Amino acid sequence: MQQRNADRTRMRILAAATEEFAARGIAGARVSRIAEVAECNKAMLYAYFGNKDGLFDAVFTASVDAYLDEVGFDAEDLPAYAGRVFDYFEAHPDHLRLSIWYRLERPEGQSLEAILAVNQSRLDELQRGQRRRAVPREFTAVSLLSLIQAIATSWSSMNPEYIAAVPNESVRRRAVVMAVRKILS
Amino acid sequence: MQQRNADRTRMRILAAATEEFAARGIAGARVSRIAEVAECNKAMLYAYFGNKDGLFDAVFTASVDAYLDEVGFDAEDLPAYAGRVFDYFEAHPDHLRLSIWYRLERPEGQSLEAILAVNQSRLDELQRGQRRRAVPREFTAVSLLSLIQAIATSWSSMNPEYIAAVPNESVRRRAVVMAVRKILS
Repeated sequence: MQQRNADRTRMRILAAATEEFAARGIAGARVSRIAEVAECNKAMLYAYFGNKDGLFDAVFTASVDAYLDEVGFDAEDLPAYAGRVFDYFEAHPDHLRLSIWYRLERPEGQSLEAILAVNQSRLDELQRGQRRRAVPREFTAVSLLSLIQAIATSWSSMNPEYIAAVPNESVRRRAVVMAVRKILS
Repeated sequence: MQQRNADRTRMRILAAATEEFAARGIAGARVSRIAEVAECNKAMLYAYFGNKDGLFDAVFTASVDAYLDEVGFDAEDLPAYAGRVFDYFEAHPDHLRLSIWYRLERPEGQSLEAILAVNQSRLDELQRGQRRRAVPREFTAVSLLSLIQAIATSWSSMNPEYIAAVPNESVRRRAVVMAVRKILS
C-alpha cells in the first residue's frame, strides 16, 4: 500500500515535471511549481530525484524510452520510419520540446547511455543496409540519420511567424514522407 | 562625443547580451551578468532597452537582419541558398541558438515585423517560380521553405551524443546541398 502510494506520487511528479520542463526548459522550470501541481512537497521531490537536473534526466529518459518504443527503426523503409517520427511528435509535441531544450541546455553534458546505445545500433543497421545495397550509399549513415530526423521534424523548425501559412497535418506528413523518398532516390 | 560614447555602450550591451541569450535563453539569461560583461550599470541597460524582453528583441532582430543581409534568397537556385544558410550558421552558431530559443520561449509571442515581411516575400518568390515552372511543384511553397531550412540546419538537430560520429564541415555541407538538390529533382 505504502509502495503503491509512493509509485503514484512518483508518477504525478514525473507528469507535472514533463509539462513544466517542456514549457520552460531546465533553467526556466521551477521545482516549487512542479511540487504544487503534483500535490507533494519539495522535500519529497528531492528525496525521489535528487535535484532539478536529476528530475530533468528522469523526465527526458522516460520521454526517449517512450519514443523509441513507439517509433522503432527500419533501415529498409526509411520513408515509413520518417512518417512514424512525424506522427509521434505531432501526438507528443512536449517530447519534441524536451529534446530541443536538452540540446540547447546540455550541449556538453554527460551523454545519456540510452541515447548512445540507440545511436550506435541505428548507425550499424544503416551501414549493414548500405553494405548489402538495401540503403543508398550516396550519403554516409550519419548524414542519412541527421537528414531524416531533420525532415521528419521540419515543421517544428519554422518560426512562429509562419503559423498562418502552415498546411494541415496530412499535407505536412505527405511532404515529409515524399522528401525522404526523394533523398533516397 | 557623448553620442559616440552612448553608441559604444549600446554596442557593448548588445554584444554581451547576444552571448548571454545564446548561451542561456531568455528565461536563463541574467541582466546583471550582461551589464557586468558590458561594463555598464543595470539602470543604463534598462534605459536603453526597457527590460530583458526588450533587450532580447533588439538582439534577435539584429541577428535576423545580419542573417538576411548575408544569406539572401534565390528561388531559382535553392541548393546554393541552402549551402549559404549552412555556411552562415557554421560561422554564427550563436545566431542559430538565438532562433531556437526564440521558437521555444516565444511560441505565441508577438510576431516580429521583419520576419513576417521576409517570410511573405520568400513564399511569393517561390510561388512565382512555380508558376513559371522554374521551381518544382510537387511541394507547396511553404513545404519547400520548411524542408530546405530543416535540411540546411539538420546537423544542429542531432543530439550531442552523436558528436563523435559527425563528419567534418565539408562533408556536412555536401550532404546538405545534395539533399536539397534531390528534394527538387
